[in-house]
Amino acid sequence: MAKVIRVNMAEKTVTVGPVPEQYAAFGGRALTSRVVYEEVPANCHPLGPFNKIVIAPGVLAGTAAPSSGRISVGGKSPLTGGIKESNAGTPVAQKLGRLQIKMIVIEGQAPEGSYLLKVDKDGAELLPADDLKGKSTREINKALFAKYGKKVGIMTTGVAGDYKMSMAGICFNDTEGRASRYSGRGGLGAVLGSKGLKAMVVDDEGAPGVAIKDLELFKRGQKKVVEAIRSHDVTKPGGALNTFGTAVLVNILNEAGGYPTRNFSSGQFEGASKTGGEAILEAVKTRNGGMTGHGCHPGCIIRCSNVYPNPDGSELTSCVEYESTWALGANCGIDNLDTIAKLVDQCNEIGLDTIEAGVTIGVAMEAGIIPFGDGAGAIRLLEEIRQGTPLGRILGNGAWFTGKAYGLTRVPVVKRQGMPAYEPRAVKGIGVTYITSPMGADHTAGYTIAPEILAVGGKADPLSPAGKVDLSRSFQAATAFIDATGYCLFIAFPVLDIPAGMEGMVETMNGVLGTNWTTDDVGKLGLETLKLEWQFNKKAGFTREDDRPPEYMRYEKLPPHNQVFDIPDEELDKIWAGFEA
Amino acid sequence: MAKVIRVNMAEKTVTVGPVPEQYAAFGGRALTSRVVYEEVPANCHPLGPFNKIVIAPGVLAGTAAPSSGRISVGGKSPLTGGIKESNAGTPVAQKLGRLQIKMIVIEGQAPEGSYLLKVDKDGAELLPADDLKGKSTREINKALFAKYGKKVGIMTTGVAGDYKMSMAGICFNDTEGRASRYSGRGGLGAVLGSKGLKAMVVDDEGAPGVAIKDLELFKRGQKKVVEAIRSHDVTKPGGALNTFGTAVLVNILNEAGGYPTRNFSSGQFEGASKTGGEAILEAVKTRNGGMTGHGCHPGCIIRCSNVYPNPDGSELTSCVEYESTWALGANCGIDNLDTIAKLVDQCNEIGLDTIEAGVTIGVAMEAGIIPFGDGAGAIRLLEEIRQGTPLGRILGNGAWFTGKAYGLTRVPVVKRQGMPAYEPRAVKGIGVTYITSPMGADHTAGYTIAPEILAVGGKADPLSPAGKVDLSRSFQAATAFIDATGYCLFIAFPVLDIPAGMEGMVETMNGVLGTNWTTDDVGKLGLETLKLEWQFNKKAGFTREDDRPPEYMRYEKLPPHNQVFDIPDEELDKIWAGFEA
Repeated sequence: MAKVIRVNMAEKTVTVGPVPEQYAAFGGRALTSRVVYEEVPANCHPLGPFNKIVIAPGVLAGTAAPSSGRISVGGKSPLTGGIKESNAGTPVAQKLGRLQIKMIVIEGQAPEGSYLLKVDKDGAELLPADDLKGKSTREINKALFAKYGKKVGIMTTGVAGDYKMSMAGICFNDTEGRASRYSGRGGLGAVLGSKGLKAMVVDDEGAPGVAIKDLELFKRGQKKVVEAIRSHDVTKPGGALNTFGTAVLVNILNEAGGYPTRNFSSGQFEGASKTGGEAILEAVKTRNGGMTGHGCHPGCIIRCSNVYPNPDGSELTSCVEYESTWALGANCGIDNLDTIAKLVDQCNEIGLDTIEAGVTIGVAMEAGIIPFGDGAGAIRLLEEIRQGTPLGRILGNGAWFTGKAYGLTRVPVVKRQGMPAYEPRAVKGIGVTYITSPMGADHTAGYTIAPEILAVGGKADPLSPAGKVDLSRSFQAATAFIDATGYCLFIAFPVLDIPAGMEGMVETMNGVLGTNWTTDDVGKLGLETLKLEWQFNKKAGFTREDDRPPEYMRYEKLPPHNQVFDIPDEELDKIWAGFEA
Repeated sequence: MAKVIRVNMAEKTVTVGPVPEQYAAFGGRALTSRVVYEEVPANCHPLGPFNKIVIAPGVLAGTAAPSSGRISVGGKSPLTGGIKESNAGTPVAQKLGRLQIKMIVIEGQAPEGSYLLKVDKDGAELLPADDLKGKSTREINKALFAKYGKKVGIMTTGVAGDYKMSMAGICFNDTEGRASRYSGRGGLGAVLGSKGLKAMVVDDEGAPGVAIKDLELFKRGQKKVVEAIRSHDVTKPGGALNTFGTAVLVNILNEAGGYPTRNFSSGQFEGASKTGGEAILEAVKTRNGGMTGHGCHPGCIIRCSNVYPNPDGSELTSCVEYESTWALGANCGIDNLDTIAKLVDQCNEIGLDTIEAGVTIGVAMEAGIIPFGDGAGAIRLLEEIRQGTPLGRILGNGAWFTGKAYGLTRVPVVKRQGMPAYEPRAVKGIGVTYITSPMGADHTAGYTIAPEILAVGGKADPLSPAGKVDLSRSFQAATAFIDATGYCLFIAFPVLDIPAGMEGMVETMNGVLGTNWTTDDVGKLGLETLKLEWQFNKKAGFTREDDRPPEYMRYEKLPPHNQVFDIPDEELDKIWAGFEA
C-alpha cells in the first residue's frame, strides 16, 4: 500500500502512514505544491522551523512508461520567498515509486548535527551523518555507495546546502551513480541544510513496484507515448536531442537573436558555435571519450544527456546541457567548452544550480569583479563559494543578491530568480512565463520556445507581443500537469504535435491511478496546481508587482533586434485574473 | 518668493521655479512624501533612473522657532523597497529655509562622474566633483569649507554612497561644521550615489529669510513652545536630555529589561552603566574635554548632542547618542565607551547609519564572523565597508542582507530595516511602530516609549499588548505632523504634557503659513501623510505580510521578562484599516 513518510528533524522521529485519500491521484509537483500550500505557513522564514521539504516521485516513476523517472521537491524557496517545485530525472524517483512511497515530508530542524535518512522496503530511519558535512557531492556519493551498495539511490546537498545559500540545489544520482542530476532551482538545498538533513539513501531491494489499477489501459497508453517519442524529430532516436543533447539549441537560439550574452546585454554570442551541441558531439568523437545520447535514468528513450570528455578522453563531467553551457558560457562571455565543462563539474560538486551560478557570475562580471570572458576567474569564483568566503557568500545567494551587493540595476531576475537561456526581449512568450510563473524566472514552467522557435505545437513570432499571455498560460497549465506525471517535460514535444501521444500520456496516468481523465483535463488539472501555487505566493505577500520584468528590460534595447520587453503590465496582469476570486 | 529647485542629473540641468499651490502648506516629511508619492513610480528600481531624491526643510526651519532646524530627505528606499523619509537636525535646513527654497528634487542619473550642487540666493548650479569621490565625509567637508567659506552648509555622502550600499546615509554638517548629522536611515545615500550627486553646498549669504504670514501669531506660538521646552523635565536646561544627552535612556531601558543586547537575545546588558549618558558626562568631566549640552543646529534650546573626548581631552567624535551607543555597544556586547565613540566616528566618516551599522555588526557576530564583545573586530568590520571588500559589501547592505548572506533566522528587522534600541518583546507599543510604520523598523516614527517608559503623554504598561495598536497609530500620526514642521521630535515631550506647548506648535505653523489649523488637526494632517506613504508602499507591492515582526520574536522568549511579541497579526492589521478604501 502506498505510503507517506514524515521525518521530524527536531524530534528525530520518522513516521510511516497511509496516503490520505485526497492525495491519491497526485504525484510530483501536483502533490508537493498541494502539501506545501496546506502545511507550510506562507509567511514563514524559509530557513526557519516552519518550512518543510516535500519530496514526491511523479505518478509514473518506477513504471515502464518511457522517460518517466522524474522527482519533485517542494517547499518555500529561500531564493524567491515563494512556493517552489524543482524536479530532476534520476533513478531515485523510480526507486521511491517502486517502494510505493508517495511522498516524504521533512519537518522541523535539528538543533545541531547532520543526518542521513535511510529509506527501504521496511520504512525509514534517521542516522547521524556528521562525517558527510562539508564534503563534495561526489565524495558523499562515493561514501554512501561504498556503505550501502551500488544499487541504492542517493539524494544530497553539497557545501552550498551546509552554508544555506539560496543557490543550493538538491543533488540526485544518475543512472551510473554520478552526483549530477539536480532539483537545482530555488535554493531548496539551503532548506535541507537548515533542517540538518544532509542526505537520503533509497534502497528499493524487495520493493513491491508501482501498483497499477488498469494494466491494459496503462500498456495501451505507454505504447502510444513510446511511438510518439520515437517518431518526433526532436525526440526520436538519432533526432536532435538524442544526437546533440539539449545544447542543440545553442546555435538555434543564437541565430534567432535570443541567446542571452554577457549578462543579457546582447542576444547573440560570437562563441556560440564553439559551445553548442555540435561542438560537444565533436569533442566526444575526436577525443574518443564521453558520450552523447546518455540517459539520466533507466528507461529513458530520449536520452538527451551526455558525458563530456577531457582532451585525453577521460571523463570530465556530466552533463553539459543547454542551460549550463549557456549560463557558464555565453552569459559570461566564455567560449571554451572545456572551461564550461569544468564549471559545470564544480557546480555539481559544490551543490549549485548551474543556471543561477552562471547568471550570478554574469552579474559579478557586470560588477567588474572579473572581466567577461575570464574562464579562470569564473572557476575561482566558484571556489570562493565552495570555501564560503565573504565573496562566496554573496555569489552563493544568487544573481539578485550579488546585484544588490554591488548596487547594480542590470540584473536579469524575476522574483529574485535568475533568468534561463532565452532572452525575454527577443522571445516574448518565454518572457511572460519568466515573469508570471509562481516559481520565478523559469523556462520549464511554460516552454513557449516550442512554438516560438521550434515550430512545435504551433507557430508564433518570437518578437511579437501578441497573444503571448494566453500562449504562456496554456503552456504553464499543461506543464503543471506533466510535472505531476513523472514524465520528462520533453515528452511535450511529441505530445503537442501528435494527438495519440497526448492520449497515451493521459491513458498511462488513468491506468495507474484509475482516474477517467481526458486530454481536455490536462490544462484544467494543471491550472488547479497553478492556482494553489499562486495563492501560496499571495499569502506570502506577493502581488502583481512581483509579476514584472526587470526595469531595465523595459528601456534598454537588446541587439540584434533592438527590442525592449513590450508586453504591458496590464496584459501581464490578465494571466492569473481567474485566480483572484 | 518660495522656490522649487529641480536638478536633472542625466541632462546636467538645474531649473528653479515657483512652489506649486498645492504644496504651499507643506514642508519636511509632508512635502517629501507627497512628491515621492506623486512623482516616483512606486515599483521603480531604487537605484535606477526613475527614483528621485527630494530634500525639504521643515516649514519653520530658518525661523526663530526653537529647535526647528530639521531637514527631510525622501525617496524610494533601497533598504526597504518602500517610501522613505529620513530627517536630520542641521544648519543646512535653516539655510535652505532662509533662502526660501521649499524643496530640491534630484532626478535622473549622471552616466558617469560625480557632481556638486551649489545653491545660493541666485539659484543653483551643478559642478564637477570627481575629486570628492572616495573621500571621507570629514575630508569632503574640509575641502568644501576651504573652497566655499566656513559659513556654508554642506550635504554629502561618504564612500558608502559611492558604493550604493543600503546602509548609506546622507550627511549634513552640525553647528561647528562637523560632518556628523545624518539623514541616516533607509539608504538614501545610495540613491544619491546612483545619481552621481556627491555633495551640495548651501550658501545663504544675502538670503531673504523665511516669509512669515502672521508674525504676531508666530511670536505668540514661539513663546509658548519655548516656555514648554524650558519647563519640562526632559527638555529643560539642566534637564535629562541637556545634561546627559539622549543616552540618559541607556540605564532606564536597561532597568526596564527592554535594552536589546547581543543581537536582540536579551533585554539587559551588564555593561549598560559603562556606556550610558552618565558615563559620557563623566568622561567629559574627568578628561576635561568634549562637551554635553551641545546643539546640532543654532537655535536649539534642548541641546541633547555631545562631543565625546579622547582620554587626553581632545575631540574624538560627535555625537555619542542613545541609538549609537546602543547599536555599537550593547547590541554588539561592547562595553567600552571609547571603542563605541570610535565606531560612531567611523560611521560618520564612511557615511553610515549608526543604527543599521550596529544592528548589522550584531548579526555578523551572530553569524560568528567575530565574537560578541570584540570591539577591535567591530572596528575592522567597518573598515571592510570603507574599503568595499566583499565582506564590506555584505555588511554595507545592512542587517537583513548580512543575515541572508549567512543563512540566519535571528535577524531583528522589519521591512528589512534594522530595529532601533528598544526591544519589541519588552516594550510592545514601540514594537507596533516598528512593524507597521511605512518606514520599516523606526523608533522615531511613533515614539510610544514616552508613555510606556517615561510616563510622558500618559502612562502605559510596556509589557502589555493591550491598546498598543491605537497608541502607536496616534503617535505615528502626531509624528508625521511634527516631521513637517522642522521642529525636533523632542518637542513632543513638552508638547504632549503641556497643552500650551501644543497650541504654540500649531500657532507657529499657522503664523508662517497663514493656515488656521487647530491642535485637533495635528493627528488628522499627520494621517494624511501616513496614508500617502502607505499607499506608495502598497503600489510598490507591500502587503499586510510586510507588517509583521521577525518570526523568531513570536516564539523565542526574551530575558529577563521571558516574553514573546504577542500582539496578534489581526490586531496589527487594524492599524491602517482606514487607508484601504
